[in-house]
Amino acid sequence: MSNTFGKSFRLTTWGESHGRAIGAVIDGCPSMLELSEGDIQKELDMRRPGRSGIASQRKEEDKIEILSGVLEGRTTGAPLSMLIWNKDVRPEAYDEIKNLARPGHADLTYELKYGIRDWRGGGRASARETACRVAGGAVAKKLLSGFEMGVFAYAVRIGGIPADGVDVTERNLDKLRRLREQNDVRCIDAAAAKKMEKAILLAKNEGDSLGGIIEVSALGVPPGLGEPVFDKLGADLAKALMSVPAVKGVEIGAGFSLADMKGSKANDAFFIERGKIKTKTNNSGGILGGISSGMPITARVAIKPTSSIAKEQNTVNMKKMQDAKIKVGGRHDPCVVPRAVPVVEAMVALVLADHGVRSGIIPRVLR
Amino acid sequence: MSNTFGKSFRLTTWGESHGRAIGAVIDGCPSMLELSEGDIQKELDMRRPGRSGIASQRKEEDKIEILSGVLEGRTTGAPLSMLIWNKDVRPEAYDEIKNLARPGHADLTYELKYGIRDWRGGGRASARETACRVAGGAVAKKLLSGFEMGVFAYAVRIGGIPADGVDVTERNLDKLRRLREQNDVRCIDAAAAKKMEKAILLAKNEGDSLGGIIEVSALGVPPGLGEPVFDKLGADLAKALMSVPAVKGVEIGAGFSLADMKGSKANDAFFIERGKIKTKTNNSGGILGGISSGMPITARVAIKPTSSIAKEQNTVNMKKMQDAKIKVGGRHDPCVVPRAVPVVEAMVALVLADHGVRSGIIPRVLR
Amino acid sequence: MSNTFGKSFRLTTWGESHGRAIGAVIDGCPSMLELSEGDIQKELDMRRPGRSGIASQRKEEDKIEILSGVLEGRTTGAPLSMLIWNKDVRPEAYDEIKNLARPGHADLTYELKYGIRDWRGGGRASARETACRVAGGAVAKKLLSGFEMGVFAYAVRIGGIPADGVDVTERNLDKLRRLREQNDVRCIDAAAAKKMEKAILLAKNEGDSLGGIIEVSALGVPPGLGEPVFDKLGADLAKALMSVPAVKGVEIGAGFSLADMKGSKANDAFFIERGKIKTKTNNSGGILGGISSGMPITARVAIKPTSSIAKEQNTVNMKKMQDAKIKVGGRHDPCVVPRAVPVVEAMVALVLADHGVRSGIIPRVLR
Amino acid sequence: MSNTFGKSFRLTTWGESHGRAIGAVIDGCPSMLELSEGDIQKELDMRRPGRSGIASQRKEEDKIEILSGVLEGRTTGAPLSMLIWNKDVRPEAYDEIKNLARPGHADLTYELKYGIRDWRGGGRASARETACRVAGGAVAKKLLSGFEMGVFAYAVRIGGIPADGVDVTERNLDKLRRLREQNDVRCIDAAAAKKMEKAILLAKNEGDSLGGIIEVSALGVPPGLGEPVFDKLGADLAKALMSVPAVKGVEIGAGFSLADMKGSKANDAFFIERGKIKTKTNNSGGILGGISSGMPITARVAIKPTSSIAKEQNTVNMKKMQDAKIKVGGRHDPCVVPRAVPVVEAMVALVLADHGVRSGIIPRVLR
Repeated sequence: MSNTFGKSFRLTTWGESHGRAIGAVIDGCPSMLELSEGDIQKELDMRRPGRSGIASQRKEEDKIEILSGVLEGRTTGAPLSMLIWNKDVRPEAYDEIKNLARPGHADLTYELKYGIRDWRGGGRASARETACRVAGGAVAKKLLSGFEMGVFAYAVRIGGIPADGVDVTERNLDKLRRLREQNDVRCIDAAAAKKMEKAILLAKNEGDSLGGIIEVSALGVPPGLGEPVFDKLGADLAKALMSVPAVKGVEIGAGFSLADMKGSKANDAFFIERGKIKTKTNNSGGILGGISSGMPITARVAIKPTSSIAKEQNTVNMKKMQDAKIKVGGRHDPCVVPRAVPVVEAMVALVLADHGVRSGIIPRVLR
Repeated sequence: MSNTFGKSFRLTTWGESHGRAIGAVIDGCPSMLELSEGDIQKELDMRRPGRSGIASQRKEEDKIEILSGVLEGRTTGAPLSMLIWNKDVRPEAYDEIKNLARPGHADLTYELKYGIRDWRGGGRASARETACRVAGGAVAKKLLSGFEMGVFAYAVRIGGIPADGVDVTERNLDKLRRLREQNDVRCIDAAAAKKMEKAILLAKNEGDSLGGIIEVSALGVPPGLGEPVFDKLGADLAKALMSVPAVKGVEIGAGFSLADMKGSKANDAFFIERGKIKTKTNNSGGILGGISSGMPITARVAIKPTSSIAKEQNTVNMKKMQDAKIKVGGRHDPCVVPRAVPVVEAMVALVLADHGVRSGIIPRVLR
Repeated sequence: MSNTFGKSFRLTTWGESHGRAIGAVIDGCPSMLELSEGDIQKELDMRRPGRSGIASQRKEEDKIEILSGVLEGRTTGAPLSMLIWNKDVRPEAYDEIKNLARPGHADLTYELKYGIRDWRGGGRASARETACRVAGGAVAKKLLSGFEMGVFAYAVRIGGIPADGVDVTERNLDKLRRLREQNDVRCIDAAAAKKMEKAILLAKNEGDSLGGIIEVSALGVPPGLGEPVFDKLGADLAKALMSVPAVKGVEIGAGFSLADMKGSKANDAFFIERGKIKTKTNNSGGILGGISSGMPITARVAIKPTSSIAKEQNTVNMKKMQDAKIKVGGRHDPCVVPRAVPVVEAMVALVLADHGVRSGIIPRVLR
Repeated sequence: MSNTFGKSFRLTTWGESHGRAIGAVIDGCPSMLELSEGDIQKELDMRRPGRSGIASQRKEEDKIEILSGVLEGRTTGAPLSMLIWNKDVRPEAYDEIKNLARPGHADLTYELKYGIRDWRGGGRASARETACRVAGGAVAKKLLSGFEMGVFAYAVRIGGIPADGVDVTERNLDKLRRLREQNDVRCIDAAAAKKMEKAILLAKNEGDSLGGIIEVSALGVPPGLGEPVFDKLGADLAKALMSVPAVKGVEIGAGFSLADMKGSKANDAFFIERGKIKTKTNNSGGILGGISSGMPITARVAIKPTSSIAKEQNTVNMKKMQDAKIKVGGRHDPCVVPRAVPVVEAMVALVLADHGVRSGIIPRVLR
């Protein structure tokens, strides 16, 4: 396994869905950053289950504890250790399907790779793991905020229902954040949000699940982040986002639609505004040659429908090596898109923090 | 810059478009692999320019020389150094646009990041760099072939023209390879290929360029490749592919179309066939929980249209900080999709070789 | 900071001397390893303070808790998180010398590097950090033991008092372990041990401290560990050992005494014994060309005297930038050599576990 | 194999003793550094063979060619590729001993690890590999020189003959460099140098070889280099130096002699001089808690006598698995200490350049 992300600002996560606790260690965070448990808690609260009728009913308060790396409200440069105790564990709920490979899930591949598998709710392959990404991302966001960088994600499509999108800018960001909080699907289009919520409840009642698309923007990113030719900014974003459970597609800027454009349209023409070189369009998503250009970073990720569904499916018993049927009980999100929104933000923030430090744009000591 | 890819099977590349030479070093290749310059040359020949009317007319034979790491036809475990001399360099062609930022290109971002830029044909940001990826990928492919793994990519869409796709299997692979060689666009649908070629020539005559989509499959990949939670196989593929110049989107398996499916359809049901667990559909693209499942790995990448075009575009003079006009001369591919096909294969092969070694499935010594 | 050690079997540690807790995460441990808290506790007990009259009187039971990565007594391949709560913290003891740079200590350099320093007992720069190395090393030792590899260290010199050394072999190992436990200095020569204990008490009474030399052997190491030309086995051992607080010298095999030998004497002649190639002498310390040869690995480390001493010393007040005097109170070991013995063993075990996995000699799954 | 050194300023080397060429790639060098082939050549000239009667008579001019990464006399941030063609190769000289394991050499371990071995002069395990370290070190030195940092090494002991040592300072550095060039053993004590030269010739005539000790200092190193707790500056220096062929011991500052000191003597007392905190003694070798303190960095390395000697030795035939006798012919240095001096300097420079960039003290762009 490889549970460390980043080269200079590095997040290591650990813990299983129904184990004693989950946690994260950040190594390489600049010193002198003001940081409190509250900074992290507010991000975790966006992700935690049990907050709405369309999310998992598992009751976790996801209370973060910082165990090291902070002295008198500031980071010291030493590793930040963060811990969340698991409270509402029910391993017994998985006892019945212990030997059945849930279709679309990691049961089979973990079994084959490791010869042993934590069957209690997927163990390490559970989306619970993403709480630690959000905790790490919260530290990254706090760091970025000191350099006027911010990240914003929202659901633009769920169960085939499209939402109106917008250009996220410094000016409309606060408003968009408020709009996003006014519904349970983390969409900024109220009308679409209602339809999405209905669709999710319908799928849930059918014992089925939905997927969708999340759009993410990073504002205020200065030119110079990204390390060609392999650690290009887009490449590291793609890796970061594709590593999130249920993500099966990533596109930067205009992404797949660029495939059908001509160069004369796809190219973002440069112009000068108040001494800075900008582009009017942003098909490149703020990345040219693998390096941030100063324009907003934009990306979209495709989220597949939750694999754990109540509907009967064909599968196999891995122990007996026989065909079998499965209905997955337990407390699952019928659509993970809303709760994946803060996870997507976290991963983008982690990439930017890492490249910020790597490039020297974010110094090692915040004097 | 970060010019090394992989953790166990590691490729480092170097060299500029109009410099003296380009090259690659592979460290971590298992010993006792039979390897000749011919194994690498045949892959390079698929990528090199000047082979067809729709590609760049730069004349490079791209002759590979192995300088170390091979003794009497076998790898020794020592680093493999490979070199290609640049023959047809014309830096003077770029003299005129030295200070102009080509829209869609890396000129601006390199200038801002490094304070200096190799303006001779894009320097390191040129697609010429990908020859070294292909050389590295050729070694990876040779290694994979000993474990019955193979990679196949082809153009499925160019300039908005779709081609018929197929399920790539061990049975039809040879036939598909032959079909792909029968046209200049590396498509396996002869009728579509003709339309694509025409569209490319038309765009070229207009001083414009086209993009497209490449589909890639990896066959024979055993279960167990991929290292959750961050170095998932899909995540590393996404990074590898997004690091290729002009790629702006990556999807694994059914990718973005999964966003609109229900779980009951998206999940690939398991069944047993001759003692092996398989799935009928392959929406997951052969990856579950970030680990290969034994089914074919499939992915698609979106390629933007070439940014260097002859048509006049608005831009800026970076030195004078003034608005300007640019027409990019030089010898550019009006559509890089055909020549990107072997590059995409190479990147997939590199990821599989790396994870093959990391997982222990490919041993360090091929006794 | 860089708090991760190893490339394949990776230990990350965190925590400060007088913070809430200290801990470690191991990523990359093979799955299916039988492992209990008891395996780790017994190693920690060798290192913990308060056990003898010549050690720090801080009362820590150093009770290990495994929070993740183990299911039903076996590792799952997921990260192993281990935690020790700090019980006997007394930050107030350091309040008085908060702004004084203890000579020989890291106060000054942390202050200059990070702009902030955890002054509570040295924070991260305390030897308390080494408990996490021992916890990690305990897992490494458990792993190695399944491959017949073992590590043994002991004090050969303290305060200038030499002890009789021996060739550590599989045959005398148990006896040596018993001998080592019969005194407080972890020496295997009872007569020397008595003199060392007296010397330490004498130094303590004078408000002073002593250093010494530890010898370490690794038995059963098969040929093939080590990755030239930079990650040679000796190089990684040197780094591992030199990273231990207070270590200022490392030598492999005959080490510095080889500088005065002639080649004809230094070279270990080969011979064949029961089908295996061996050497009679072992000046190379079991490493040739950076790779283990199959002979025992041997090394020696020089430990400087504890820098925190009660005697008055000249120093500076870092805040006022004035010359000052300091007497370091608190509970310090007058000689860290005895308690460093298990730390040295741990670091050697970590290097061997890492290279065991990297070389493929230790498989990823212990079926 | 692992042929890359460093995390931010990274050197990758390749090539065999009797292969076509050897070379190095530096990735992560800051841009805008003035650099010419001459900067590198002068360092290589210090190491190359055939310059004196006490060195190998192999005739190599070791002419460096920079193939990438430099434009108009400045680095661009792109990888620097450097190449040296092997001219005077004589693989046939090794034909006779192809299957005999030279005692003290890497023949046996390479054979066992890789299953194949480049028997031509040791292949990758030859000291010829160190030319690439020197080339990389030359770039590091050039970089460091812009920040007033310099490295100086010399032989302090050869064949048991001690030389007078000195404190290397900015004031006496030029003089010491001149003194060092006045003899073939790279010693700064003319009288000792003569005795050493005689001793080497005597050993050579006897078909034997000598070892020795090299002392190295780094001046002008600012406080703040080094990343606790594992990538401490001393730890990375120890790894760097122990990875050099023939090195079997490394000590920092007073090193092994600290083991016998009391704390009150070992601790370097602080005082203030012109607003800077300094120490009168430098037992710590300029490193406290793994971080540079601003005092000179000092270290010593033990070099074993050359393993390839003409005298008859007992060994084994690895193919026949029989006891055998060996006399190693070929062109070997009877003592590698003099030629190791620039290699030691190079490794120290590489560590400082890497930590300089990692710490942010050396910026990514030298504007």
